[in-house]
Amino acid sequence: VEAIDISEEAAALTEFWSQRVLGEANGSLFKVAKGIGSINWHKHDDQDEVFLVIEGRLTIQLHDGDVTLDAGDMFIVPRGVEHCPKADAEVHLMVVGTAITSNEAGGKPAWSYTRGGK
Amino acid sequence: VEAIDISEEAAALTEFWSQRVLGEANGSLFKVAKGIGSINWHKHDDQDEVFLVIEGRLTIQLHDGDVTLDAGDMFIVPRGVEHCPKADAEVHLMVVGTAITSNEAGGKPAWSYTRGGK
Repeated sequence: VEAIDISEEAAALTEFWSQRVLGEANGSLFKVAKGIGSINWHKHDDQDEVFLVIEGRLTIQLHDGDVTLDAGDMFIVPRGVEHCPKADAEVHLMVVGTAITSNEAGGKPAWSYTRGGK
Repeated sequence: VEAIDISEEAAALTEFWSQRVLGEANGSLFKVAKGIGSINWHKHDDQDEVFLVIEGRLTIQLHDGDVTLDAGDMFIVPRGVEHCPKADAEVHLMVVGTAITSNEAGGKPAWSYTRGGK
């Protein structure tokens, strides 16, 4: 039985802003992602979205202002709230929610589908 | 709008193995705790329990063997599975589940109610 090294799982991803499910608990998916650059403004009407930074820095742009997360910081974007994550350098993060949100409706820009793996 | 610094929240706790809710999302509570020493063997029949270490090292003893978590590592203890967390030195962690488990039924030993804050 072994623990999951979240940052290692993030580094192994081949696309930016693409989530992979590491585990499920109580109806929530614990997902890993790596990000760089900015995605598109969007919202989720069906789920709250929890961001937890493991390595690097993530900025979550909100209409109320920017929230900056460093390693060990968390922030919850409630359902229905428009947001736009961005990162100047590669960031490794955990995202918790009830479903995968790394698709076009989740703000994922076209470039991120091909840019990963570098 | 500000992110939550989980380790800072853990440091501010006055009792070991006592959880404080930092936020709620999709029916799950995102809780912070700090631990040292060992709690008691126990299980939760009503919820899966997610452990995510923010700072330090946590060992989760299972009947199948020990799982060691360093910062950035996660592990899910499924409902009904007996476990016994321990830490040789102070560890800061996030625990995700549907309710507070830092009580006697959650394995919290009597000493931890008074030992915190040091």
